[in-house]
Amino acid sequence: MNGKIRVGIAGYGNLGKGVESALAATQDMELVGVFTRRDPAALQLGNRAVPVHGIDAIARFADAVDVLVLCGGSKTDLPEQGPTLATLFNTVDSFDTHAKIPEYFAAMDAAASHAGHVAIISVGWDPGLFSLYRLYGEALLPDGVGYTFWGKGVSQGHSDALRRVPGVRGGVQYTVPSSEAVARVRSGSRPALTTREKHTRDCYVVLEPGADPAAVERAIVTMPDYFADYDTTVTFVSAAELQRDHAAMPHGGFVMRSGTTGTGTSQRMESSLALDSNPEFTASVLVAYARAACRLHRRGERGAKTVFDVAPGLLSPKDAADLRRELL
Amino acid sequence: MNGKIRVGIAGYGNLGKGVESALAATQDMELVGVFTRRDPAALQLGNRAVPVHGIDAIARFADAVDVLVLCGGSKTDLPEQGPTLATLFNTVDSFDTHAKIPEYFAAMDAAASHAGHVAIISVGWDPGLFSLYRLYGEALLPDGVGYTFWGKGVSQGHSDALRRVPGVRGGVQYTVPSSEAVARVRSGSRPALTTREKHTRDCYVVLEPGADPAAVERAIVTMPDYFADYDTTVTFVSAAELQRDHAAMPHGGFVMRSGTTGTGTSQRMESSLALDSNPEFTASVLVAYARAACRLHRRGERGAKTVFDVAPGLLSPKDAADLRRELL
Repeated sequence: MNGKIRVGIAGYGNLGKGVESALAATQDMELVGVFTRRDPAALQLGNRAVPVHGIDAIARFADAVDVLVLCGGSKTDLPEQGPTLATLFNTVDSFDTHAKIPEYFAAMDAAASHAGHVAIISVGWDPGLFSLYRLYGEALLPDGVGYTFWGKGVSQGHSDALRRVPGVRGGVQYTVPSSEAVARVRSGSRPALTTREKHTRDCYVVLEPGADPAAVERAIVTMPDYFADYDTTVTFVSAAELQRDHAAMPHGGFVMRSGTTGTGTSQRMESSLALDSNPEFTASVLVAYARAACRLHRRGERGAKTVFDVAPGLLSPKDAADLRRELL
Repeated sequence: MNGKIRVGIAGYGNLGKGVESALAATQDMELVGVFTRRDPAALQLGNRAVPVHGIDAIARFADAVDVLVLCGGSKTDLPEQGPTLATLFNTVDSFDTHAKIPEYFAAMDAAASHAGHVAIISVGWDPGLFSLYRLYGEALLPDGVGYTFWGKGVSQGHSDALRRVPGVRGGVQYTVPSSEAVARVRSGSRPALTTREKHTRDCYVVLEPGADPAAVERAIVTMPDYFADYDTTVTFVSAAELQRDHAAMPHGGFVMRSGTTGTGTSQRMESSLALDSNPEFTASVLVAYARAACRLHRRGERGAKTVFDVAPGLLSPKDAADLRRELL
């Protein structure tokens, strides 16, 4: 035993691969196993020394893993697996269905509390780091208005909608913050803005052979819910260009707080992320909170937590005196 | 007893006035007394219902105050008063002499721990919120470089230096982030930048009658330590203009983290503040941490803490379930 935090990964998609990579960059944590629903023998890990196991065998590893990073999806994987895994392990996950967070928190809290574990849910950048920015904004400038802008980044839901349009062979949709809306917020005028006023939508589309570009463009920009109410642009590209220029998963955005102190003094807080890889950054956040989950458990904490419950110092491998000296 | 957190203010300068104003905007906290070294009868509070006491009588109020906000200066007031007051009260302060934080922390920790109190030190925006941004940056993007830029804002030390130049009747110095340096950091190139490369200095100066502008300007821009190594501009203004245009205390700045995940993927985090009043924002931060100090004490925590030790949710008057539903 070398004293490192022993970490497991459940689910080896883009996020799981990102967690593997982020763990390799730490000095105080080590990856001790990957758990998958696929055939373990078929999985090619970056580090071949790390064993791969079928997820069905995971209960046998309850004593060998200090914290398990759940890398499944929020729609079906986490609601099904999360509470079961929280009875066996300390866990960290990136559950991101905002509307269902209270329900998921309750299920994870019951499972983790009963089994004596810590489960940090909804870790990543939104929910996650952006949630923290919103909270600091509201707590430090209570007389104020908060704004979240997303992008520039790929929206999977809107990209899927694009690809269902007849005549479209492939495509990617970027959500882009409206520079006019951002400027209005920065002015301190506290505008009332809907999500659609805050964003525009840029589509890059590959046509099927023989498809009519004008008809495809019209079908996209008039599509209800997804595009009709937005300022939407469509750019036609070749399949090679789509693959070359639009295969990455960039994302990011802004969280702003426009507030007042005293007798009408303007104060503004703003934070932003510019991410060249959304899953790799989410993975990096998950690893820092995995460290915190292990520390909270060692201190005797139990049950479900969110980023709001975790003191920032617990995220760093440095001790408190070093943090005060170097970063305060 | 109405269940509100009972807050005292020690020191009634700009910061103390800001705390009074920030407390008035809360629903869950109330100002129960101001303590001053001056003649209490001479102090004109915003709210005349709040009693003013001489600081020498403060020990009598140990049971009447849940948390005391220390609004003295870092140079002499806090090192002298802080440890004594931490034996009597839970405290929050804005100690901001970066190099002496370890020493001050130790003195406050000894006093607060022994007396069974919580003392949150170095609260404000730098140290404080900017420290948090630096910590999140380093913990979430460990392979990266962090940058702090200050301004545009008034530097008291540099303004004082200006006013000591022969022929200068009054003046204000603004520290301004170099837009070229900011652009280099945003590019992701991770430049090595000294504080002086990151900032320029803008001086607004009122001349003594008969003073030679050219001689004054030369004396300023060649002053060692303060101005000689910076790109410094001097603008001469009338006393009326100085009073009209340069009496406010704006400040702010940027904290940036330029990092890499995976195999060379660029990721960037950036946070900024644009404050029209430095002391009012600092006061607003102090009040949120005063709430947290009281809650930590009720949970049984003891000793000195910094912003790194305080879970973000403790800053908000909302309960944890509301925070998860509204802000996560």
